[in-house]
Amino acid sequence: MQNSQILSHVITDPNAIENQSLQIIHAKISGKYSGQRENLDIIKRVIHATADFDFLENLSFTENVIFNTREILRAGKNHAIVTDTEMLKSGINKSIAQKFGIEIYCDSSSPEIKLEAQERKITRAIVNIEHAAEKFPNAIYAIGNAPTALIRLCELVQEKAANPALIIGVPVGFVNVIEAKNFLETLANIPKIISRGNKGGSTVACAIVNAILYGL
Amino acid sequence: MQNSQILSHVITDPNAIENQSLQIIHAKISGKYSGQRENLDIIKRVIHATADFDFLENLSFTENVIFNTREILRAGKNHAIVTDTEMLKSGINKSIAQKFGIEIYCDSSSPEIKLEAQERKITRAIVNIEHAAEKFPNAIYAIGNAPTALIRLCELVQEKAANPALIIGVPVGFVNVIEAKNFLETLANIPKIISRGNKGGSTVACAIVNAILYGL
Repeated sequence: MQNSQILSHVITDPNAIENQSLQIIHAKISGKYSGQRENLDIIKRVIHATADFDFLENLSFTENVIFNTREILRAGKNHAIVTDTEMLKSGINKSIAQKFGIEIYCDSSSPEIKLEAQERKITRAIVNIEHAAEKFPNAIYAIGNAPTALIRLCELVQEKAANPALIIGVPVGFVNVIEAKNFLETLANIPKIISRGNKGGSTVACAIVNAILYGL
Repeated sequence: MQNSQILSHVITDPNAIENQSLQIIHAKISGKYSGQRENLDIIKRVIHATADFDFLENLSFTENVIFNTREILRAGKNHAIVTDTEMLKSGINKSIAQKFGIEIYCDSSSPEIKLEAQERKITRAIVNIEHAAEKFPNAIYAIGNAPTALIRLCELVQEKAANPALIIGVPVGFVNVIEAKNFLETLANIPKIISRGNKGGSTVACAIVNAILYGL
C-alpha cells in the first residue's frame, strides 16, 4: 500500500516521533528538576507515556537507583523482572530483555493462580507475587496496578523471603494505594522508585522499566 | 500460604476493592457531569485506572455511543475489537469478550508487520491498522498509543475502506496527537470516544473498552 496523502504531512518515522516528543518534554521541564540526571531520563519517559507533568513532582528515587540497577542487569546473571499484571508484562521491551538474558515473569492469569485467589478470597496479584518471590527472590519487581501485591511484597521483604534488586512501586487508585506506598517507603536498604500519591498505573510502570532497559 | 498480618488490616477482596474505589470516585465527581449517564460509567473507570480527574473534562462521546455499542456487541455477529498495541490487547477482559464471541485483534508485533514498517519507514501501528481494516472494516477500533495509526484509520474511513462501529481515539503524547484527534472529530457518522488534548494512553483505552464490556 502507498503511504497516504495526509500522513505525508506529519512525521511518521518512529524514531523521529520519539525524539521530537522527548525534546518537547525536555523543554517543558528544563531546570525544574534538582535530582540525579539519570532519574530525569526516567521521568521524561513517564511523561511521554502519560502526558502528565505531575510525575515530575510525584516520582521519588533512592540514591543511584538507576545507575545501580543498570549495572546489575548488565552483569547478566539470569535476572528477572516480575510484574503484577499481564498488561505490564506485555508492554516491556522484549528484544532488549532477551539480549541481556532477562526473564519477564507474571503468572497472574494462570488457572492455578485464579483458583488459589478464589479459594483464599484475595487478589490474584497477591498470589502471583508470592509465587514470584519463591522463584525470583532477588528480581526487579514492578507493581503498576495492584496495591495489595505491593503490600504483600513488602511483607515478604520484612520476613526475609524476598530481597529485590529494585521495587518499582507505582500502583494507581484510591483503596490501599497510599498505604502500600508508605509501607514501601519504610523498607530500608531496598532500592526503590515510587509514584507518591494516588497516581501510577501499568503504563507508568512500563515506561520506567523500558527507560531503564533503553539505557543498558 | 496463610494470609498475612498486615494484609488482614486492609481490604483484599477484589470486588470489595473495586466497589469502594468506584464509590470514592463517584463521591468526588458527583454532580459535576452533565452528559449521558452511561458516559459517566466509562469516565469513572478511566479515573479508576489513572487517578486523574482531568478525564472528567477531557473525554467526549458522540450521542448514545455507549448504549449503541453495547447493543451491537450483544447482537453477537462475529465482532472484533482492534487495538493499536499488544499491551492494550493484553489488558482487555478476555472472558467477557469470549462470552460474546468478540475477537481481540492486534498484529503489530508480528515479524511481517515489523518488516513492512521498516521497509516503508512508518510505524508498525500504521501497518497494523491497514491490515486490520482489510480483515475487520466494521470493528471497534481502540487507539491508545499511536496517533499515526489513528490518522491512517481516519483516512481509511474517508476512503470508505473502513466503517468502524466505534473509534476510541485516545492516543497520548506531544507529536501528531492533537492533529489525529482533530481529524477524528471531522468524521461524520462515526461513533467515537475521544480524550481531548495530549492525555490518553493504553490504560485509558483499556479502561474504556472494559467498561463497555462490563455493561454487556
